[in-house]
Amino acid sequence: MKKNARIAIMIGDPAGIGPEVVLKSLVANPEPAHILLIGDAGVVRNTASHLRIRLDIRSISHVDHAHFEAGVISVLDPGTFDRQAFKVGQVSAECGRAVVEWWDVATRLALDRKVDAVIKAPVNFESIRLSRRQPAVDSGGKSTHLLLIAGTLRVAHLTDHIPLRTVFSEITQSRILDLILLTHRALTSWGVASPRIGVAGLNPHAVGTEEAETIGPAVQAACAQGVCVEGPIAPDSLFRQCLDGRFDCVLAHYHDQGHIAVKTNSAEGNCAIVLGEPFLRLSVAHGTAFDIAGKGIADPGALLMAIQHAASLGSGRGFPIPSGAPPGN
Amino acid sequence: MKKNARIAIMIGDPAGIGPEVVLKSLVANPEPAHILLIGDAGVVRNTASHLRIRLDIRSISHVDHAHFEAGVISVLDPGTFDRQAFKVGQVSAECGRAVVEWWDVATRLALDRKVDAVIKAPVNFESIRLSRRQPAVDSGGKSTHLLLIAGTLRVAHLTDHIPLRTVFSEITQSRILDLILLTHRALTSWGVASPRIGVAGLNPHAVGTEEAETIGPAVQAACAQGVCVEGPIAPDSLFRQCLDGRFDCVLAHYHDQGHIAVKTNSAEGNCAIVLGEPFLRLSVAHGTAFDIAGKGIADPGALLMAIQHAASLGSGRGFPIPSGAPPGN
Repeated sequence: MKKNARIAIMIGDPAGIGPEVVLKSLVANPEPAHILLIGDAGVVRNTASHLRIRLDIRSISHVDHAHFEAGVISVLDPGTFDRQAFKVGQVSAECGRAVVEWWDVATRLALDRKVDAVIKAPVNFESIRLSRRQPAVDSGGKSTHLLLIAGTLRVAHLTDHIPLRTVFSEITQSRILDLILLTHRALTSWGVASPRIGVAGLNPHAVGTEEAETIGPAVQAACAQGVCVEGPIAPDSLFRQCLDGRFDCVLAHYHDQGHIAVKTNSAEGNCAIVLGEPFLRLSVAHGTAFDIAGKGIADPGALLMAIQHAASLGSGRGFPIPSGAPPGN
Repeated sequence: MKKNARIAIMIGDPAGIGPEVVLKSLVANPEPAHILLIGDAGVVRNTASHLRIRLDIRSISHVDHAHFEAGVISVLDPGTFDRQAFKVGQVSAECGRAVVEWWDVATRLALDRKVDAVIKAPVNFESIRLSRRQPAVDSGGKSTHLLLIAGTLRVAHLTDHIPLRTVFSEITQSRILDLILLTHRALTSWGVASPRIGVAGLNPHAVGTEEAETIGPAVQAACAQGVCVEGPIAPDSLFRQCLDGRFDCVLAHYHDQGHIAVKTNSAEGNCAIVLGEPFLRLSVAHGTAFDIAGKGIADPGALLMAIQHAASLGSGRGFPIPSGAPPGN
């Protein structure tokens, strides 16, 4: 029996749907875990009250004081948030300042191994910009890559928000090899036994110069190091193969190659892990949704997925069993 | 009440799963239509017998002799196929020669307005190459574009099998505008009332040079001509929006942008229409599947989708109602 993962969830921008989806997810989460919130305890209490969620919400000033009992949730609260300085659904410097401070707390806990995973609920980049606050704690992660997850579809991205035109110069054999090895190490550390990785081609049907000169040799080099990896595989068939269980994770070369697959497929929420950080760091793909904040109608699916993955991967149990999965899958 | 569409289905390579999925689809098709096969009547009879499908299969030598009655299926058969010269599951010049001849017959029927739609069951390109036979009938289609369909996701492609690197020079304002107008005219001619078209961006979140200088202006020019079109839209959210009914059809700029969405999403079969032909021309995305030919286990889903679309679009009734669609969708 694996030990329960200790998870710190930063509640996100108090003006957005973060606190709401966090509380809804805590109630719905089926995976055993020791969960701690980071944020303003007053905001959490008000949100719970508004949602009629009955939880004993306790403000703590040190992680060692956290309670992990049914019906109790501890909020590690620096006590600096000014609840008079924000309005639900609105951009504010105070919320921007607070989320940067709280995320620093989360990063510090993870670096100190006080928790096994951290989850970031949605923040608002305009509020952060207004606050002029910069993160003070460096995670130490260098070459980081987005791993996007929707059910059994898990896609590690070689590149992210860059123009499609500039992708070609970023695709080198050594970078692809590094990402394959990084993904392999991450999956193994999470308890995925003998992880199988599929690597996308870049061109239609995976036939082209990049496949022959760069992607193929990188895959072969990884195989030679004992990694179970296949590719380059036709991009339009690879993601379905992952969904169907042929791979544990696939590698995409550019933002939309992976994101189109994940977001077109997923009717439920999807979550993201940052590969290359020295700890398990998760987030959700959606934003603060100011237009529906405070209305109690936000869908917690994505944050719930993040918690389930943090709980399962953080304790070394591998990926959580997706709901509705066929027997034996 | 619209008249039933007259549909000609070329049975595909006799050595592959074409005849099997055609016959299975004929039995399963719920859309009213007048369907005629083109191919070898003996192959069709043998396949029906093997599948225990009871149909009165009649060989005819002219389209005007076709029977459109329940339980009867006419096969327009040039009588040239040598059934001794092929084996199920194997490449052969004779099958390659035959499918080119039969497809010429189909194209001629469509050009002569004897049918409203033609469907091509899977052919084998190696067999065609061996036969050295070239098509003799030119459809007259000039700038053709693939429209790929999976349920309510319908994607028109600006470019097809070209290296991703070369896509950028193909994306011009006039080509995008032409495809928007072509798609609009096609949807309207098929009976889709006030068609709504969504155009993808090229870069992550549809933010970049191409969006500002090429795609945006093309969309605006189409709007100015009275077409209901939106874009550029973030590529990773557009396809889901189409699936959810916000658009009748979307426009993708490169092969995998559209194909990843369609093939990742579709658990059921998908079919394809060639936009820009002077008639409604459909095909399926899968091949001859020689490995399972003759075993009776081929999934007819894609060909059935093609028949349903031919029947509905060919009679001007718009897109068929997808099975399992929510009420009012």
